[in-house]
Amino acid sequence: MTLFELLFLGTAASAPSVWRSLPSTLVIHDESRFIVDVGEGTQRQLLRSGVGFKRLNTVLLTHGHLDHILGLGGLISTFARWEAIDTFDIYGGRATLDRVKDLMRVVLRGGEVRVKINLVELEPGVILRGKGYTVSAFPVNHRGGSSFGFVFEEPSRRPFLVEPAEALGVPPGPERRDLVAGKSVTLTNGMVVHPDQVLGPPLPGVKVVYIGDVSRTEGLAEAAQGADALVMEATYSAADADLAREFGHITAVTSAEIARAAGVRTLYLNHISRRYNGRELEAEARAVFPASRVVDDLDHFRVTRDDPAIRVTRDE
Amino acid sequence: MTLFELLFLGTAASAPSVWRSLPSTLVIHDESRFIVDVGEGTQRQLLRSGVGFKRLNTVLLTHGHLDHILGLGGLISTFARWEAIDTFDIYGGRATLDRVKDLMRVVLRGGEVRVKINLVELEPGVILRGKGYTVSAFPVNHRGGSSFGFVFEEPSRRPFLVEPAEALGVPPGPERRDLVAGKSVTLTNGMVVHPDQVLGPPLPGVKVVYIGDVSRTEGLAEAAQGADALVMEATYSAADADLAREFGHITAVTSAEIARAAGVRTLYLNHISRRYNGRELEAEARAVFPASRVVDDLDHFRVTRDDPAIRVTRDE
Repeated sequence: MTLFELLFLGTAASAPSVWRSLPSTLVIHDESRFIVDVGEGTQRQLLRSGVGFKRLNTVLLTHGHLDHILGLGGLISTFARWEAIDTFDIYGGRATLDRVKDLMRVVLRGGEVRVKINLVELEPGVILRGKGYTVSAFPVNHRGGSSFGFVFEEPSRRPFLVEPAEALGVPPGPERRDLVAGKSVTLTNGMVVHPDQVLGPPLPGVKVVYIGDVSRTEGLAEAAQGADALVMEATYSAADADLAREFGHITAVTSAEIARAAGVRTLYLNHISRRYNGRELEAEARAVFPASRVVDDLDHFRVTRDDPAIRVTRDE
Repeated sequence: MTLFELLFLGTAASAPSVWRSLPSTLVIHDESRFIVDVGEGTQRQLLRSGVGFKRLNTVLLTHGHLDHILGLGGLISTFARWEAIDTFDIYGGRATLDRVKDLMRVVLRGGEVRVKINLVELEPGVILRGKGYTVSAFPVNHRGGSSFGFVFEEPSRRPFLVEPAEALGVPPGPERRDLVAGKSVTLTNGMVVHPDQVLGPPLPGVKVVYIGDVSRTEGLAEAAQGADALVMEATYSAADADLAREFGHITAVTSAEIARAAGVRTLYLNHISRRYNGRELEAEARAVFPASRVVDDLDHFRVTRDDPAIRVTRDE
């Protein structure tokens, strides 16, 4: 069964702490893996996570602030020199990519690192179509501009209804597979069964929404509508809302309000300033939106829709 | 009492491991602190070490390979934004500084980091004179050139000899201080005492020598002559000497041979490739030079000359 996974490699804001590395998150769908943001220390966090380096050459950047991109230098250098990864696709807004270009100049100067870097400028809309999922970008308001959020989404599907199928005499096996795929089938008794007879109304696919740093929240609840997992920043507590405004960030409570407005299933809060331990931010968010969770480095979650209740499994 | 300290922040070679961060070492003398090399992750290792960020704005770079410099971006960004450090002096060879310049362009673009960066090109000889010590640079042969080692050294001093002083009737107090400072004194009985009468032959000051990556070893034993602490790479084991040559490095055994030839007191081996755990490299080095020690991240040593035996205190 395909599903999405979220693996939080670094969950700090701006500067690392003893406990939190700088921002980076893996979004995994079956065989596809995306690195969302690459703060300093990401390559080491990957080692610690134990997920290996294979197929980790697609990078999505929410924006170009240093705490979200400086790890690209070491990551690319190590992957190219020791892991035989020779191509990287890096998606970002224009200003983000300008900064990444400067960083790549540092990496490629001297010639010891040989690698092909594809910089792909983001525009709102679908940016990638994979096997059983799409990735889209949408604009986000943050200091300096050029910021994007990402939607990872499976297509909607119509569930197979066992009861009418058995009533019609559709046997288990290829006939059912064809019906699920939208094809009519002829049974051995000559009866033709059409997909609409055995498929329920469309269910939306699993949806994961990742939003990086945020100054203004217009449009975010719309983008996150109905997400199974929404990842947002919790840089400040409600008591420090003035600081949040001053530095172009939002509070845990604001993120929880967006999760509530968007009707998401679970809110994952990251980008934690080192002035907090995280638990107080989680409590504030839960008062607004109970299914809020402040994540720690190396937390690893599966995102499914099998269970009508919120069901997020934490890998131990 | 002044003394030197060595605090190893990162001890990996080229790529980090779960256990080792990329190269960076603090050399501390009383109130002076130097950061030698700044691999990715240095700012977080500093946090872990608990030594604080104060007066950490002098950086000495052995060379410009990425694993020794990429941490400068995050370090300077964090120090400038959150620790009110507004000036950095960065010493390195010309090619090293060219690369650092490119990295600083990434950091300073956008204007959120405001800091004055002084790039100081290294030439062999004394580069800094502090209170009670000097720092010198000497050329080192490594891939790509522009590599330097560093000598941290207290001036030699003549010890005060209590027995002849008492025989001459020199009282404790200012007279003795003046004699130690090289001045003659007149005692209350009218007798003039000259420094040579109460000072022993000069004793060399404590000497710490730091050598980064090495391809060829000519001249290194001379530079390290009589050092109390010599820091060198142990990137490869003797069995992998071919790899060492191929990648422009040396083995733990070669470093031990230099330590033996230089008559140093203790050899600290760092820059450990992740193919080793370090203990096997230490055993190889000790077979050649018994006072060898493979260091781990956050190992912290004092370097003194109080005790005729090798005495290295590990802070717990």
